[in-house]
Amino acid sequence: MANTFGHLFRITTWGESHGDAIGVAVDGCPPRLPLEVEEIQKELDRRRPGQSEISTQRREGDRAEILSGVFEGETLGTPILIGVWNSDARSKDYDHMRRVYRPSHADYSYDAKYGIRNWKGGGRASARETIGRVAAGAIAKKILAREFGVEIVGYVKQVWKLHADVDPSTVTQEDVESNIARCPDQDMAVQIIERIKEARKDGDSLGGVVECVARGVPVGLGEPVFDKLEADLAKAVLSMPACKGFEVGSGFGGTTQTGSQHNDPFYSEGGGIQGGISNGEDIIIRAAFKPTATIMQLRGRGRHDPCVLPRAVPIVESMMALVLADHALRQRGQRGSV
Amino acid sequence: MANTFGHLFRITTWGESHGDAIGVAVDGCPPRLPLEVEEIQKELDRRRPGQSEISTQRREGDRAEILSGVFEGETLGTPILIGVWNSDARSKDYDHMRRVYRPSHADYSYDAKYGIRNWKGGGRASARETIGRVAAGAIAKKILAREFGVEIVGYVKQVWKLHADVDPSTVTQEDVESNIARCPDQDMAVQIIERIKEARKDGDSLGGVVECVARGVPVGLGEPVFDKLEADLAKAVLSMPACKGFEVGSGFGGTTQTGSQHNDPFYSEGGGIQGGISNGEDIIIRAAFKPTATIMQLRGRGRHDPCVLPRAVPIVESMMALVLADHALRQRGQRGSV
Amino acid sequence: MANTFGHLFRITTWGESHGDAIGVAVDGCPPRLPLEVEEIQKELDRRRPGQSEISTQRREGDRAEILSGVFEGETLGTPILIGVWNSDARSKDYDHMRRVYRPSHADYSYDAKYGIRNWKGGGRASARETIGRVAAGAIAKKILAREFGVEIVGYVKQVWKLHADVDPSTVTQEDVESNIARCPDQDMAVQIIERIKEARKDGDSLGGVVECVARGVPVGLGEPVFDKLEADLAKAVLSMPACKGFEVGSGFGGTTQTGSQHNDPFYSEGGGIQGGISNGEDIIIRAAFKPTATIMQLRGRGRHDPCVLPRAVPIVESMMALVLADHALRQRGQRGSV
Amino acid sequence: MANTFGHLFRITTWGESHGDAIGVAVDGCPPRLPLEVEEIQKELDRRRPGQSEISTQRREGDRAEILSGVFEGETLGTPILIGVWNSDARSKDYDHMRRVYRPSHADYSYDAKYGIRNWKGGGRASARETIGRVAAGAIAKKILAREFGVEIVGYVKQVWKLHADVDPSTVTQEDVESNIARCPDQDMAVQIIERIKEARKDGDSLGGVVECVARGVPVGLGEPVFDKLEADLAKAVLSMPACKGFEVGSGFGGTTQTGSQHNDPFYSEGGGIQGGISNGEDIIIRAAFKPTATIMQLRGRGRHDPCVLPRAVPIVESMMALVLADHALRQRGQRGSV
Repeated sequence: MANTFGHLFRITTWGESHGDAIGVAVDGCPPRLPLEVEEIQKELDRRRPGQSEISTQRREGDRAEILSGVFEGETLGTPILIGVWNSDARSKDYDHMRRVYRPSHADYSYDAKYGIRNWKGGGRASARETIGRVAAGAIAKKILAREFGVEIVGYVKQVWKLHADVDPSTVTQEDVESNIARCPDQDMAVQIIERIKEARKDGDSLGGVVECVARGVPVGLGEPVFDKLEADLAKAVLSMPACKGFEVGSGFGGTTQTGSQHNDPFYSEGGGIQGGISNGEDIIIRAAFKPTATIMQLRGRGRHDPCVLPRAVPIVESMMALVLADHALRQRGQRGSV
Repeated sequence: MANTFGHLFRITTWGESHGDAIGVAVDGCPPRLPLEVEEIQKELDRRRPGQSEISTQRREGDRAEILSGVFEGETLGTPILIGVWNSDARSKDYDHMRRVYRPSHADYSYDAKYGIRNWKGGGRASARETIGRVAAGAIAKKILAREFGVEIVGYVKQVWKLHADVDPSTVTQEDVESNIARCPDQDMAVQIIERIKEARKDGDSLGGVVECVARGVPVGLGEPVFDKLEADLAKAVLSMPACKGFEVGSGFGGTTQTGSQHNDPFYSEGGGIQGGISNGEDIIIRAAFKPTATIMQLRGRGRHDPCVLPRAVPIVESMMALVLADHALRQRGQRGSV
Repeated sequence: MANTFGHLFRITTWGESHGDAIGVAVDGCPPRLPLEVEEIQKELDRRRPGQSEISTQRREGDRAEILSGVFEGETLGTPILIGVWNSDARSKDYDHMRRVYRPSHADYSYDAKYGIRNWKGGGRASARETIGRVAAGAIAKKILAREFGVEIVGYVKQVWKLHADVDPSTVTQEDVESNIARCPDQDMAVQIIERIKEARKDGDSLGGVVECVARGVPVGLGEPVFDKLEADLAKAVLSMPACKGFEVGSGFGGTTQTGSQHNDPFYSEGGGIQGGISNGEDIIIRAAFKPTATIMQLRGRGRHDPCVLPRAVPIVESMMALVLADHALRQRGQRGSV
Repeated sequence: MANTFGHLFRITTWGESHGDAIGVAVDGCPPRLPLEVEEIQKELDRRRPGQSEISTQRREGDRAEILSGVFEGETLGTPILIGVWNSDARSKDYDHMRRVYRPSHADYSYDAKYGIRNWKGGGRASARETIGRVAAGAIAKKILAREFGVEIVGYVKQVWKLHADVDPSTVTQEDVESNIARCPDQDMAVQIIERIKEARKDGDSLGGVVECVARGVPVGLGEPVFDKLEADLAKAVLSMPACKGFEVGSGFGGTTQTGSQHNDPFYSEGGGIQGGISNGEDIIIRAAFKPTATIMQLRGRGRHDPCVLPRAVPIVESMMALVLADHALRQRGQRGSV
């Protein structure tokens, strides 16, 4: 089960960062969904390294191919296999790492678990594994938009100590894509970009918070006990590399308020989920990312990111879409409609 | 799958808060584990309403019965069914709620999902559902202690704006149980208890943070992708009622640091997990609980808690134990040993 | 997963034959299904020991209680917990078995697996475990009838070398219940009853075949690969005690025909399933039961059955209903309707 | 879940018969298993069309590629992705089938389920899907042999009305591979080959029975209730295309015996499974295959098989290996050793 996510809408990712290829098998997709590889490619390009001057300069084409499950432009209802061939792996860059455990990486714990690892790179722990998630997420988003009227928008909410001011009820993907920081607060975006450039120059790295909103979610998604909507979203978010925290609605901030403040009609708890089940309001989640571990003196020519936040946006969106699509199909199964 | 948690060590909880009984089926427990009902009862008593002057005055015996899976004091390896009969449900207290949706409760979303609910109480969304988790958690803790050398200690880290100072590497359950706030920082415990009493008097409620540490965790537990240890812990934590946030290691606080600070050998990132897999260090998680919703003017005689934090401690411990026990058995399956 | 069956409509059975109680948790049931305990009891009475002169004389009330998931006569959509308390266990009957492995029983393999067993009886391997299946099957049948128009009828097709002649397209439950053999071929029923009485007198036992038909199954249930409808039915059937074989459609008999005969429009292959997916025709399955193992000289006063076939009928029906209900909900989830 | 099989050792197959590629993702494989692509290729060659004069003349190279999960000749413990590119699909052969539903095929039920299908061929219902099973089965067999001492041998037991005489306790793979019928009874093999040639000449097809034995199975594999070893084997077998029946041990034949005969120490019930759990004896299963549906006048140039039995042998072996490997890892997880 380790590499599979979801129940009715279910994905299995495969591939190592420095192997031949990487990708995903998507199972349970509704049939007759119009699907072109370009729609998937568009999302992969948002995740791709080397896309802007503030991301890693490791360049990869990351061209998606659909190998099964789509016929004459429509999904068949059978597994969709999407692969990306690794072209710019440059494994020689990593030869000096053969016997080194990088700090804050999974190198040691991997060896301890399996007694073996592909020392050329992060293997399955690499951020490249998220290619499969984003490809599957593109499909999940399309199901949600077409069959359930759901729209998902993610954005950079915070980098280091710089907090953006964003209204989740109105923010658009165009706002997000209008700058390379993927921060729809344009003034703060300028500062964030400057701060990331500074960190790159210093051989340092920065963490931050991605916020993501789902609008138009039907009431009734999620289950009352273990498969609460917020529980599955938390798992989805924490399964991303470098993620260290999750919040829904009032989150950690809400803990310092009293119940009378928290329930005040003028102070909305938000979150769009009550008792594990969507209530029709916007669902707002936040994911905390630590600063990336590989700093200049250790990474040699590893070409890692000074700040993963802008590239994490489509990944968070994808994970949210996977959870909502799965729960939408589950609710339709139990109730007969959504 | 909605009411089932875990893969090899797997539990299914059942029962409504105001039904006849409530409980859990535990599947996949190793055989020949010595088990007495008193061990389970002891943990239930830590979770029980009415246990101290700062918890709800709703009093319930919450007496556990083991109906299957144990024979002559040992587990059989077959499902263990544990039930608690509801004795003090006092459903008449809730008659005036029949047509009322309580704010910050799941009443509305439940109706929207199912088209029906047991209006006498929170049904499956009630905190009483956690009885089954705590009963199963007692078994998980015992497996972890006997077969894997793991010890789990949870405690109140924060109530409202009051933050305790606790060393997770040395805190003991005796420290935790030494006061009714379950806060091992004795000075802060006094202030917390006073603040909760004040909230009760005002008909108000308080949220906060429970921290939980697992010590002695073998290296190699957790999976590199979706079933990362932190991902399953996040799901476990967010599946608890009233929980709004999760952190592991440096969490949200770590996002304001630079990579050079974060990886500094003198500033430990902590968390005990790298790339989803335990590294042998202490695993430290935090769960944010919102202030409970039912405030005086609405709850009538519902007798809810001014602050759920002290009673949440054994529940957080149980959820952490369920995740670690499941992953320990899974690792033993794939590798042959742990 | 060992004690859980199904995906969206999912049951977990619990309890040992000589423990305190035995039962089932039913998860994923559609809400607002009218449900009375008498409907479940009626099916349990068909499965009950001591119901006729040709079944075991072990007498048990087997009174079902619904402990959760039903409110004011309707399902809540939450787990339904059904229990039966063991009243006539007479465990002293089994004291002489403490150190004996009964032939053709699971005693030895149980000990080998777990290193422990409840030697007072068959434990989880006992036919009493099927109480939970029949209780859950009663619910599944009702869902199928009300929401999908499916009717399921099982009957004794063969006992020992006595083969009944039954038309699956027209047989009714009334036909089946018209004699204690549950064989709708009335002439053959007389012979079967005589043969069972003779076996009892001789301290011997008889096997046979139960056939079961599902009529009105919507087209499109089942999945094309591993979760083929016939595959899940085969697992369901072979998970019953004493079952040694499964057939769908032309089964083993069809292997001796040529393709031109087999596909002949005048010789219907039957089975109602093509490529794993229902095609709208009647689905006909057969389950082979070995003669029960405990023969006179070994069982002492164990009071076992000379022929389990009549009592197996409601169990086979239940297993078929569980599979079809689960697949109906799954199809509704993926497609939006059935 | 529809395209995934297994719990701890888990496979997901993907690809349509006339798409670009077809294959499997294998999850949960123990790390450090030596694995070369040639070992997988060898098994695929046994399954391959066009391998002998009595199989279909459709020729395909079916060259396996390992795209992930293996590093320097050893498994990494992470998902192993194996793909086979379709080279000889000749989709033009099928253009005349665009609006035809072939009898005894899944064409109609597919359309009914999904509202769409790849009409160029059988899609996921095609026997080509079993490539992924055989590739994964090669890995499962190796795990079983190296870590658990299990050997699996399958063979043709019956074609049409021709029954072979084989001793499952001594038959070797060399015996099986010594003739193109894969029938170790050499005299009967000659007759079977003649009968298949005759059927081909007549544009007809033949069904039959594959028997498969697992020797050296440790005691204790399998679970007492739903995941009985025979139940998972039955599902595995019935999930193969064209399979209509399953038997373990005495099967349907045992139903005509009395208990005293069946339990007679001189008449071994066989089966190697008691109460769902392996008892250390040989496990013997049988799979019934109907005669293939596409007969001359309908199939045009589709080049289908007059008798799938010889090519089904490695598929049955693979399905048995997948079940046993999964249960071996599960038992190791729950008990700590096997």
